[in-house]
Amino acid sequence: MTQFRHLEDFAPGQRFENGSITLDEAAMIAFAQQFDPQPFHTEPEAAERSFFKGLAASGWHTAAATMRLFLGAGLNVAWGLIGRQVETLEWPRPTRPGDTLRIACEVLEVRASRSRPEMGIVRIRTETFNQRDEIVQRMVTAIVVPVKATAGG
Amino acid sequence: MTQFRHLEDFAPGQRFENGSITLDEAAMIAFAQQFDPQPFHTEPEAAERSFFKGLAASGWHTAAATMRLFLGAGLNVAWGLIGRQVETLEWPRPTRPGDTLRIACEVLEVRASRSRPEMGIVRIRTETFNQRDEIVQRMVTAIVVPVKATAGG
Repeated sequence: MTQFRHLEDFAPGQRFENGSITLDEAAMIAFAQQFDPQPFHTEPEAAERSFFKGLAASGWHTAAATMRLFLGAGLNVAWGLIGRQVETLEWPRPTRPGDTLRIACEVLEVRASRSRPEMGIVRIRTETFNQRDEIVQRMVTAIVVPVKATAGG
Repeated sequence: MTQFRHLEDFAPGQRFENGSITLDEAAMIAFAQQFDPQPFHTEPEAAERSFFKGLAASGWHTAAATMRLFLGAGLNVAWGLIGRQVETLEWPRPTRPGDTLRIACEVLEVRASRSRPEMGIVRIRTETFNQRDEIVQRMVTAIVVPVKATAGG
């Protein structure tokens, strides 16, 4: 049975990893047509002449794929993975058709909540890499984590 | 014909608005099944007993819907809307099934790029509201914008 983690189970420096998701061209275009319909995300030929010099996934598609990988990275938070805040999110280079993504996470800080004693905040840096070990997304998030006493153990 | 904007056309204090997108329950569940498959995003009954006390959209779905609204908000940047960095992104309350979202954007800062003279950075705060005028997402982004001379127009 999965062992769920509470606030007390997290400490700075802990690392979690996971991969992989492959974003193929059809999925990239379908996501972009729904949420980010710009030629460099939806039209391969027009994309060649764009800022990106070729088809690029919407950054929000890379972010959503990263969320999927994050769920499988073994944090196993008792309440599930609930984002309180994304402190920073950047895309140093685009995700390209056929790229296979993986993530590496590191716990930066663990702190109690000032206003709600039953929970705390865990700050995590998540880097998303492509199959050439290049960073396509860098993110720091604060997630909400219950303390052990309140959750009943 | 659409008038495209360059760096020189932006100034702090400018406001842009757009609405609306309605996120129905089926779309919320479909997005979450693909990218954020947790019971409070995919199973209405289990969601009632969760942190969210009812089905909630994945924050990444709210973010993607906001991107779609952002594209229609009339910024009309010459290169398209290219995010360099999201400086902060938070979800003060969840998006619920059937919520209709709108956005309000304000330009915070306009600056030249230190390394690339052909472009600059525009920092924008984007707030996403539901139909009760409650904020469901607060975001500050830095987008890449070409300067007029280089773009030839």
